[in-house]
Amino acid sequence: MAASKEIEQGTKFEPKFDAKGLITAVSQDVETGQVLMVAYMDAEALDLTIKTGNAIFYSRSRQKLWRKGDESGHIQRVRQILVDCDQDCLILKVKVDHGQCHVGFQSCFYRVLKPRTKELEFVAEKVYDPEEVYKKDKKIEDEK
Amino acid sequence: MAASKEIEQGTKFEPKFDAKGLITAVSQDVETGQVLMVAYMDAEALDLTIKTGNAIFYSRSRQKLWRKGDESGHIQRVRQILVDCDQDCLILKVKVDHGQCHVGFQSCFYRVLKPRTKELEFVAEKVYDPEEVYKKDKKIEDEK
Repeated sequence: MAASKEIEQGTKFEPKFDAKGLITAVSQDVETGQVLMVAYMDAEALDLTIKTGNAIFYSRSRQKLWRKGDESGHIQRVRQILVDCDQDCLILKVKVDHGQCHVGFQSCFYRVLKPRTKELEFVAEKVYDPEEVYKKDKKIEDEK
Repeated sequence: MAASKEIEQGTKFEPKFDAKGLITAVSQDVETGQVLMVAYMDAEALDLTIKTGNAIFYSRSRQKLWRKGDESGHIQRVRQILVDCDQDCLILKVKVDHGQCHVGFQSCFYRVLKPRTKELEFVAEKVYDPEEVYKKDKKIEDEK
């Protein structure tokens, strides 16, 4: 359903959180345009992201705030926040270093579906070694 | 929580649908890299998108399949489908014409949050007139 004209064509930021209090946030490299990851924010994560200029998400699995890069060092500096027509999705245009995905790739989207199959093909090379970045006595789970 | 190694580093496509049977899909212009919209697919929409090469979503508000462009003519020809590390999000790299958002803009993300405010600023111009494209005897709701 289309949102109200005020929501769609106004200048008041009224993010629409879902039933769980979350909004989808797409992180996109401000320089290359590459989509790096898709995550979720609650109102607090969004406020903190706006205030601090660093991307802070809400981890659905751990049910707590998650400052991107706290474990890995691969933070995202937010240069711009865009919102879509019905204000239920955000794009964070971010400045990043190498290695935004906890698996070792620059983007979480490192595989493509082969045409007319259900098979994936890698389209990226790893840019860092997660074994080195994530200490072995910590769980990799912390970052995703 | 991190997904299994097979999910994250394997070549088998195993899209993870949420409790409502949906997966997030980001449409990105294959030529410019611009993120056009974020929508949702159920298994059927995903299958049909793969088979037909046109983006087909599941409309949460109308609770039915929605072939992008059926009303407006602004279809999305899917050139590539990428999946993220835990396979719960897709990127559709799409070839499009002018005007992908039902409000009249090329992308649904036509407003940016002014730094340190809750106020939006328009960062795009309309590229078509929705009044002309959507027949007045049809509801604009059909397209969103």
